Amino acid sequence: MPLKNDTFLRALLRQPTEYTPVWMMRQAGRYLPEYNRTRARAGDFMDLCTNPDLATEATLQPLARFPLDAAILFSDILTIPDAMGLGLYFSTGEGPKFERPLRKECDIRALTVPDPNIELRYVMDAVSQIRKSLNNSVPLIGFSGSPFTLACYMVEGGSSPDFSLVKTMLYQRPDLLHHILDINARAVTAYLNAQIEAGVQAVMIFDSWGGALSEAAYGEFSLAYMQQIINGLIRMHDGATIPSIVYTKGGGLWLENIAAMGCDAIGLDWTIDIGKARCRVGDKVTLQGNLDPVVLFSDTDTIRAEVGKVLHSYGKGNGHVFNLGHGISQFTDPDKAAAMVAAVHELSRPYHG
Amino acid sequence: MPLKNDTFLRALLRQPTEYTPVWMMRQAGRYLPEYNRTRARAGDFMDLCTNPDLATEATLQPLARFPLDAAILFSDILTIPDAMGLGLYFSTGEGPKFERPLRKECDIRALTVPDPNIELRYVMDAVSQIRKSLNNSVPLIGFSGSPFTLACYMVEGGSSPDFSLVKTMLYQRPDLLHHILDINARAVTAYLNAQIEAGVQAVMIFDSWGGALSEAAYGEFSLAYMQQIINGLIRMHDGATIPSIVYTKGGGLWLENIAAMGCDAIGLDWTIDIGKARCRVGDKVTLQGNLDPVVLFSDTDTIRAEVGKVLHSYGKGNGHVFNLGHGISQFTDPDKAAAMVAAVHELSRPYHG
Repeated sequence: MPLKNDTFLRALLRQPTEYTPVWMMRQAGRYLPEYNRTRARAGDFMDLCTNPDLATEATLQPLARFPLDAAILFSDILTIPDAMGLGLYFSTGEGPKFERPLRKECDIRALTVPDPNIELRYVMDAVSQIRKSLNNSVPLIGFSGSPFTLACYMVEGGSSPDFSLVKTMLYQRPDLLHHILDINARAVTAYLNAQIEAGVQAVMIFDSWGGALSEAAYGEFSLAYMQQIINGLIRMHDGATIPSIVYTKGGGLWLENIAAMGCDAIGLDWTIDIGKARCRVGDKVTLQGNLDPVVLFSDTDTIRAEVGKVLHSYGKGNGHVFNLGHGISQFTDPDKAAAMVAAVHELSRPYHG
Repeated sequence: MPLKNDTFLRALLRQPTEYTPVWMMRQAGRYLPEYNRTRARAGDFMDLCTNPDLATEATLQPLARFPLDAAILFSDILTIPDAMGLGLYFSTGEGPKFERPLRKECDIRALTVPDPNIELRYVMDAVSQIRKSLNNSVPLIGFSGSPFTLACYMVEGGSSPDFSLVKTMLYQRPDLLHHILDINARAVTAYLNAQIEAGVQAVMIFDSWGGALSEAAYGEFSLAYMQQIINGLIRMHDGATIPSIVYTKGGGLWLENIAAMGCDAIGLDWTIDIGKARCRVGDKVTLQGNLDPVVLFSDTDTIRAEVGKVLHSYGKGNGHVFNLGHGISQFTDPDKAAAMVAAVHELSRPYHG
């Protein structure tokens, strides 16, 4: 059964499309009142992630409002370290935390790769159920945090202004950090492949904190392990190519290196001009992005104008997936998201065909 | 009376030096026990800034410990908006805040440029006193926040995870933000020129938050106003050229544009490879940076090795001032800072002369 709308998948593979497809990072989230109602019914955030019925409900909510060209699995980037036993929890206003952060060498040596079909069964069940509910309308994106980004949270125990613990390990005990990253890379590979087997039609790696590294450290401690994952991903499933997207926030300096990894697309934050990014990577990869999420606090004329600038900067031709440069803010008016999606669909047509 | 050590000034002007000069952003600060004692005597942070005796004491403390090649005025980047009447204060663990943030158009229209020799007299008094105490040992750096960075704090009322208020103004009411930025640029120009007249021998503009902008917005709302300042700075004072340094944290994508402004040096954060930065800007400007401050949590052998990598990446020749890529962490052991300074002085000699 073919997809009714495969624009997103064609754009990721640099094939011709009639318009520029669009989705939004964190499109199922707190800016939607219906999401907040689902979340309240679930209990806490992880209760929502681990309940396939509710995860399906959350995944589909933005698609009921906006003509988005892709759905993304409702889940968290930190499910893997939780499955490793670190105890993920969310404290209000402080983001994700771990009850048992990785600080001691013996704990690091004891880490093992979880079996995604056992310890992360709830994710695979959600994927299957979401695919059924989507009924081949649009493709479903699966995802994970990058090995380095997972390690940041695993070692720090939460977010951090300067990541001093994980970066001290990087400089002082690189062997230990490499050990964590190798385990993480194998875990992410198995996890994303299990998501593919369960039905996701594209995968994205979120490297939220790779941009906190020096260029040399980024290459050795973040990029190398994302490369290991890309090399290990299932390329074809159910007769279709499964494209991969790598997003390093703050990674604009390293686009050539990211493109050389063999991923199909690079997610861009809003700080880089997408036209210049295109010049730098040539026709090697698709670019996904990169409207500043703060634009959605403006009036619809301004939103339309700023969408137009991103489309114009990318220019004519294939290989662009429109997105925000970062997750949509919880304080966004959903009507402004609607205005952005409509503007992308309308204004992008002259750049195609 | 010539300076005993003018290595820093020569390096900023791309003249030959015997070794690579070094200083540290936030070198007078909480990692030094003697600073914490001075601070405790002063009362709060602004009491320390506004007391020329104590500001002089704090400025000189790191020079008594380490053979640094420059002193930097002990002050805050936000003295200008404080002088404009916004009420700067520091709440523990939350960084700088303003009692009366700029939100209403009438308040914005009422902003005026402070007279630095009146409202910021305490800074000029500190500069004169520090120069006397330095007794021509090393040059003194003056500084200010950039117009955009000042505006971030002025509009948000403090730091912010996404600067949504000031960036919403940028997209929705660019005329209002331009009005603030023009006032700020005129205020910073007058302030830095007053510092030069009072005795600082180089000036630095700290653009802490320009890196939160898109490329187009950075050019229009941050760079253009730093350009206005550079154009208005006193170039020669007391028979010497006064070099200028521009530091945009997260500005690695825009080095060519920063170099074209006419500043003498660009401050680099640690995310960019300094050798690649040098290739991009050619011999137009000196580069200042860019060791990851977290390296100072390592042992001295590691610190020495990482210092060596930065020096090696920059390579032979003039035009490098060594620094951290960001302010030194308050949790740094002062002996580690000493190890860095010693390593720079020793390991850089083969790259010169």
